[in-house]
Amino acid sequence: MESSSKYLDSLIREFSRLPGIGSKSATRLAFHILKMPADQVDRLSEAIVELKRNIRSCSLCGGISDEALCRVCNSPDRDKEILCVVEEPEDMISIERTGAFRGLYHVLGGVIAPLDGIGPEDLRINELVQRCNDQSVKEVILATNPTVEGDATSLYVARILKPMNIRVMRIAHGLPVGSDLEFADGPTLAKSLSGRVEM
Amino acid sequence: MESSSKYLDSLIREFSRLPGIGSKSATRLAFHILKMPADQVDRLSEAIVELKRNIRSCSLCGGISDEALCRVCNSPDRDKEILCVVEEPEDMISIERTGAFRGLYHVLGGVIAPLDGIGPEDLRINELVQRCNDQSVKEVILATNPTVEGDATSLYVARILKPMNIRVMRIAHGLPVGSDLEFADGPTLAKSLSGRVEM
Repeated sequence: MESSSKYLDSLIREFSRLPGIGSKSATRLAFHILKMPADQVDRLSEAIVELKRNIRSCSLCGGISDEALCRVCNSPDRDKEILCVVEEPEDMISIERTGAFRGLYHVLGGVIAPLDGIGPEDLRINELVQRCNDQSVKEVILATNPTVEGDATSLYVARILKPMNIRVMRIAHGLPVGSDLEFADGPTLAKSLSGRVEM
Repeated sequence: MESSSKYLDSLIREFSRLPGIGSKSATRLAFHILKMPADQVDRLSEAIVELKRNIRSCSLCGGISDEALCRVCNSPDRDKEILCVVEEPEDMISIERTGAFRGLYHVLGGVIAPLDGIGPEDLRINELVQRCNDQSVKEVILATNPTVEGDATSLYVARILKPMNIRVMRIAHGLPVGSDLEFADGPTLAKSLSGRVEM
């Protein structure tokens, strides 16, 4: 696409490379930036560079952090007896947004995927076992994705942790809140039946 | 939303301010940027600042430009006898993308909207009349949006240009290509019937 400005073309091209942004959205964003106040434009541009420059991994949970220890690991208010195990740092943020979990996290950094050449030794499973050994962890919630690889990884981790006298839990699978039985897919509906709870 | 990094929060906040980007998309974009190569991150950040710093209006058509005259107005290959009148510079880019128009453009800078206090004198209508007077314009295509204000603005402009011995045209309204009669809205279907063409 050639517009009448090379600066506009350049920004549209860069925006189009981001996930979920096609050329129409990229054009809309670029025109929005043209109309934004200069200080807001500078803030956006700086935030992009600063993120890339300053971010690191939390040395304890493996999540996103500015310091050696992330905000969650560093907080005195969190329940250190419960660990929530997730695949990626993004998942940790999704759970934090719900406000429904007050324990600590452990980021595996992926899932066991033999076809992609990713084995248990490529994930932060040893670090998890170490944390469970060192600290007063009483419960581990396995919150990997409800996929074949996510389920297999949770099963693998559960088998290691169970002999350590830790309560190992898996997040519930079933119908999403507000959804419709009629449109639910078969496997989800089957999980929702087999995982029924007493009222 | 408070994640475990103030840099991440800051970028998510800035992204969320852009149109069509909610907090989930903003988070996804921010994590994508974390994984992007550093030089691509720099290019994106620079493109944002450079656009805001360097862009100007074309002195002839009023579209987006890097120079005093935009690429389209400056091109020797364009048909200077046909002008396409649009509301905003964005519309000019949409039409350019089709590759179906080889004339020049004129950007009005909005539509007549009395309720918002925007009258004909706030738009670039005088400049349009001037261009039609000075240059060898034979045809003007009114390509304002098919809305009440867009139609009214086109009507207003048409009444001024017609006495100047110029062919004044309006873009066709009707069913979008690839759409379905069954799901078309009433006004569009009515327009498509009244604007029927001989086969």
